[in-house]
Amino acid sequence: MAERLTGIFTPHLVPLDERGDIAEAELRRYLDWLIAQGVHGLYPNGSTGEFVRFTPEERRTIVRIVCEQAAGRVPVLAGAAEANVRETLAACEAYAGFGARAVAIVSPFYYRLSPESVHAYFAEIARHSPIDVTLYNIPMFASPIDLPTLRRLAELPRIIGIKDSSGDLAFMMRSLTAIRPLRPDFSFLTGWEAVLVPMLLVGADGGTHATSGVVPELTRRLFDLVRERELDDAMRLQYRLLELFDAMLYSADFPEGFRAAVELRGFRLGRSRQPLSASQQVDRDRLQRTLQCILADFGCVAAPSGGCPVRETNPERQRVTRIADEVVADLRRRGVV
Amino acid sequence: MAERLTGIFTPHLVPLDERGDIAEAELRRYLDWLIAQGVHGLYPNGSTGEFVRFTPEERRTIVRIVCEQAAGRVPVLAGAAEANVRETLAACEAYAGFGARAVAIVSPFYYRLSPESVHAYFAEIARHSPIDVTLYNIPMFASPIDLPTLRRLAELPRIIGIKDSSGDLAFMMRSLTAIRPLRPDFSFLTGWEAVLVPMLLVGADGGTHATSGVVPELTRRLFDLVRERELDDAMRLQYRLLELFDAMLYSADFPEGFRAAVELRGFRLGRSRQPLSASQQVDRDRLQRTLQCILADFGCVAAPSGGCPVRETNPERQRVTRIADEVVADLRRRGVV
Amino acid sequence: MAERLTGIFTPHLVPLDERGDIAEAELRRYLDWLIAQGVHGLYPNGSTGEFVRFTPEERRTIVRIVCEQAAGRVPVLAGAAEANVRETLAACEAYAGFGARAVAIVSPFYYRLSPESVHAYFAEIARHSPIDVTLYNIPMFASPIDLPTLRRLAELPRIIGIKDSSGDLAFMMRSLTAIRPLRPDFSFLTGWEAVLVPMLLVGADGGTHATSGVVPELTRRLFDLVRERELDDAMRLQYRLLELFDAMLYSADFPEGFRAAVELRGFRLGRSRQPLSASQQVDRDRLQRTLQCILADFGCVAAPSGGCPVRETNPERQRVTRIADEVVADLRRRGVV
Amino acid sequence: MAERLTGIFTPHLVPLDERGDIAEAELRRYLDWLIAQGVHGLYPNGSTGEFVRFTPEERRTIVRIVCEQAAGRVPVLAGAAEANVRETLAACEAYAGFGARAVAIVSPFYYRLSPESVHAYFAEIARHSPIDVTLYNIPMFASPIDLPTLRRLAELPRIIGIKDSSGDLAFMMRSLTAIRPLRPDFSFLTGWEAVLVPMLLVGADGGTHATSGVVPELTRRLFDLVRERELDDAMRLQYRLLELFDAMLYSADFPEGFRAAVELRGFRLGRSRQPLSASQQVDRDRLQRTLQCILADFGCVAAPSGGCPVRETNPERQRVTRIADEVVADLRRRGVV
Repeated sequence: MAERLTGIFTPHLVPLDERGDIAEAELRRYLDWLIAQGVHGLYPNGSTGEFVRFTPEERRTIVRIVCEQAAGRVPVLAGAAEANVRETLAACEAYAGFGARAVAIVSPFYYRLSPESVHAYFAEIARHSPIDVTLYNIPMFASPIDLPTLRRLAELPRIIGIKDSSGDLAFMMRSLTAIRPLRPDFSFLTGWEAVLVPMLLVGADGGTHATSGVVPELTRRLFDLVRERELDDAMRLQYRLLELFDAMLYSADFPEGFRAAVELRGFRLGRSRQPLSASQQVDRDRLQRTLQCILADFGCVAAPSGGCPVRETNPERQRVTRIADEVVADLRRRGVV
Repeated sequence: MAERLTGIFTPHLVPLDERGDIAEAELRRYLDWLIAQGVHGLYPNGSTGEFVRFTPEERRTIVRIVCEQAAGRVPVLAGAAEANVRETLAACEAYAGFGARAVAIVSPFYYRLSPESVHAYFAEIARHSPIDVTLYNIPMFASPIDLPTLRRLAELPRIIGIKDSSGDLAFMMRSLTAIRPLRPDFSFLTGWEAVLVPMLLVGADGGTHATSGVVPELTRRLFDLVRERELDDAMRLQYRLLELFDAMLYSADFPEGFRAAVELRGFRLGRSRQPLSASQQVDRDRLQRTLQCILADFGCVAAPSGGCPVRETNPERQRVTRIADEVVADLRRRGVV
Repeated sequence: MAERLTGIFTPHLVPLDERGDIAEAELRRYLDWLIAQGVHGLYPNGSTGEFVRFTPEERRTIVRIVCEQAAGRVPVLAGAAEANVRETLAACEAYAGFGARAVAIVSPFYYRLSPESVHAYFAEIARHSPIDVTLYNIPMFASPIDLPTLRRLAELPRIIGIKDSSGDLAFMMRSLTAIRPLRPDFSFLTGWEAVLVPMLLVGADGGTHATSGVVPELTRRLFDLVRERELDDAMRLQYRLLELFDAMLYSADFPEGFRAAVELRGFRLGRSRQPLSASQQVDRDRLQRTLQCILADFGCVAAPSGGCPVRETNPERQRVTRIADEVVADLRRRGVV
Repeated sequence: MAERLTGIFTPHLVPLDERGDIAEAELRRYLDWLIAQGVHGLYPNGSTGEFVRFTPEERRTIVRIVCEQAAGRVPVLAGAAEANVRETLAACEAYAGFGARAVAIVSPFYYRLSPESVHAYFAEIARHSPIDVTLYNIPMFASPIDLPTLRRLAELPRIIGIKDSSGDLAFMMRSLTAIRPLRPDFSFLTGWEAVLVPMLLVGADGGTHATSGVVPELTRRLFDLVRERELDDAMRLQYRLLELFDAMLYSADFPEGFRAAVELRGFRLGRSRQPLSASQQVDRDRLQRTLQCILADFGCVAAPSGGCPVRETNPERQRVTRIADEVVADLRRRGVV
């Protein structure tokens, strides 16, 4: 029986050059750094990787580069969802050829499909894929994979795991209860790092976390601490990572906060393909200063030259500050100031 | 000042051949029929047209065929959303070259973006598009376009209208109030035919309705009746169309019910690219018989050879029938019967 | 066969005195005014009437006063939902004794119950009530009454109608289709005045609208215009009322905006039992000035002494103003200014 | 500084006699049993206790009985929400007189209020209550208490804790981060026992769990295991309790599944005040047999005389069985069989 996918797989961003094209050299440098920092695997073409903003050809290029650069050092879980089953299977074939360990396929999105259709979709792929398949459940963006559907899909040997980004701990527990006895080789990866420690404690095998693209050494340490049952230390670290996670997730449209943070680690990611307004650009600069202070606290980067303010933990005051900033930005946009 | 887009634009399905490729001849035959039945315009690459299930190249092929076949007889509103702004603009350029009247661009989907990002996205497109742009608001599938965002976007001359599929009549009224005084040339099209007559009465210019791909002569008649202020007749027809609409929309995952209905009008659409399970195939056959009876009532098709049952209007009994069918299908799938 | 409930029933607020008790004399004066302005009926203990903020005894007192004051001039539809079926039936009995035409019973709230439970609840009441019952569907606050449940409940003769506050025009049409043939005496009242004209056009019998407690002469006129098929005038009035409705509904937690407006018509409603913060009190004063200008436009009240600003129809600018006001209020609360 | 509320507080059901009145003797017997089984506290008038289905007088009677029967053996956290602030304060005064440790006040329900209104409501109560107040956050039923609001409310010394039934682990962590440094005496109780162990691990002080009214010895043991850092045993028990919890929660409208289970422990709870249909009664009998088998597995009750089937863990088959049962029930109701 195959071993389960285990550990932290990094759903990494893709650096772009000044023309907006894939910056291959910088991507390779970034991947090398991630591997050196201890990530267990790489996950190109995930939500963090903005797979929907690339063309089919670009998605293929990305996986090829990642597989080449990983060069067997860590396994690659390649996002392979394309416009339809035929295109997806063609991507599966290509990624198998590149040496990916498995593909990850997000549930059908745009349309919200019924469980029966979600099943039919994955079953059709599983029956023809030349490479192992993991399901990707992200109900806030795509048709949900509910428990009965997951249970039915776990009957298909080609399907070897699920990445669940719902963040629902009870759903994880119910899934483990339903499937582990029948498929001990089935992997359960969580995509919601806000509660990674609890997820690991209930039995998840690991996760695919955008945060691991920013502080791979820390998410690795978190994983190892749980492994070694150093739960108090693990929980302390979880709490500190939650602050970072919240700052990246709620300060800008996903995944822009993560891009701002990765840049602080020394990588040139370029401008997002989703345009930023002038006021969003201002917000982003401010966010980046905030993130630099959080990362400096971890010892990951130097503090900004002006020093960091005493951390403002008063949410009310934060709110006032935020609103005041919005007003000024708005007034500026309208030409009032 | 340009004239507003007016009338019913048909977001048509695309026939596929046995290999799952675009069946060009059948598509052209279908388009000719739609035009002959009186649709005011054609709308390729809409949600009904399953744009997300085609490749970028296929989407381009579809618009080319539609523009060629329309040949100036009716205007073409071409869905042009691609993976990112650059790709979308390339599609805009191509569709302008094919002779489309305007493009329709759905709000960013998969990620749920903030209003500021939605604005930045459309503004960037509007600033560079060589062809008029209509916004496509479909909050159940894509990032919503809220009223302040719509108002700001209406300041850009390239943006000439909105297709709103929310079905929210008050939103339509608020939009008309906010924008018509400033942009009398701005078009308001509704995508929710369940309430087409009320939408036209509050001032909408028309609609883009999947139902018009099934019974184009009836949706045209509905539009004309409202124009001529024959409201009682219009309302009667609206009620009858609601029954057809509900049957197509709620009996299967969208747009499968519409595909089943178009086939009854004599077009070979082929199998969906979204696989159907065995039990869904059974449901579909049953639905098609139901639809044939509804369409026969309109005089659009002949009744099925076995005749139609007296219409079952008791929803309870319908529910029992439906559940019973589900059980049998389930039992069959599990090998019990 | 009984006649259907028809027209506009006013779900009125209840004036409170300085101690927070029911101000009976002012309530009677308000009711007289409403009747004089032409409302077709009165609806005490609705959502607008804040029924959940009164004790059971107070709810009874309110209905008694309303029935006495109506004195047969207009029918009374009395909200009768209490803690459980037994208490509700006791209220039904009391309200029958007071001379109410019927009771309105909101679907069970707090818990979100299944359709089967919603049915069981209403069926139990209908089997024992000594007075006609109307169902009250308000899915944003209470367990929804879906179409199959409504259909089953319409089999019970004691149930004579539904007040639907969902605002869903297609739901209204489907309900009418399913029930009117079997129960021509069944009343359909809408609670969503934003789309009152379209609701009447599809066949609703009337409505219960908070707005009719503010401008009863105008909602009456709207109803009469639709009756007389003066649709253009009706629609123009609908559009103007939408502005008023939006201002009252979205500027404060419901029903505080309506309370502010009724006071402008010359009634002392007293402070809400739901406390207002200092910043909410400031917002309310500002709202009242806005409302006075809207009502002055209708000729219902005099313009404020300082005159009205040219109506700001630019939503962007409104937004900036609102945000700026929030900042100042926030800063003030935190003692910064 | 006061000690935090700690441990499992039982939100117990209230036995009713044949006439539907409070069965005082049985209630006292049930409370004695709960205390003997080791619950840390009692929580009358919670959601499980169906507080909305009792009259104000009955709610007072319940708290009086509970305080008398607890007699200082365990603290009483009394649900005190009434129709408005004045009534709620009167209840607070009464419950203080009965000897309750604190009151629990659910956020305003029916209306969905803004954060500012939620704050104003609790602040007004906190400023006048003669007894300590805990906030009750249950967003699926009542206006949510968001983090900034919670932070502001924690400035008021009368407010000593929150019971959070959202089940959102990250929200619990964010709340602890924001408030514990400033208010080390502030209690955090979770109402979502599906994830009790993880909640305790991140720092929650305990919980108020309907399940503890069914298997108080097991929820106590779970709490003690976490205290003693026997995490493997704790997690195993958590998994087994999840099965029981799911069976009680998802098989019937809340809290009917819990009532069925408590009866198996030997208490006569009587019929719910929410009527059950005939088919619901059948479902309930079937559920009770299922629950008896789960409880027998725990050794809490004897297995049913006919023995227990091998546990059906195949969710598909369960679904088929459930659907088949529904059909038969439906057909029976329609008189078909």
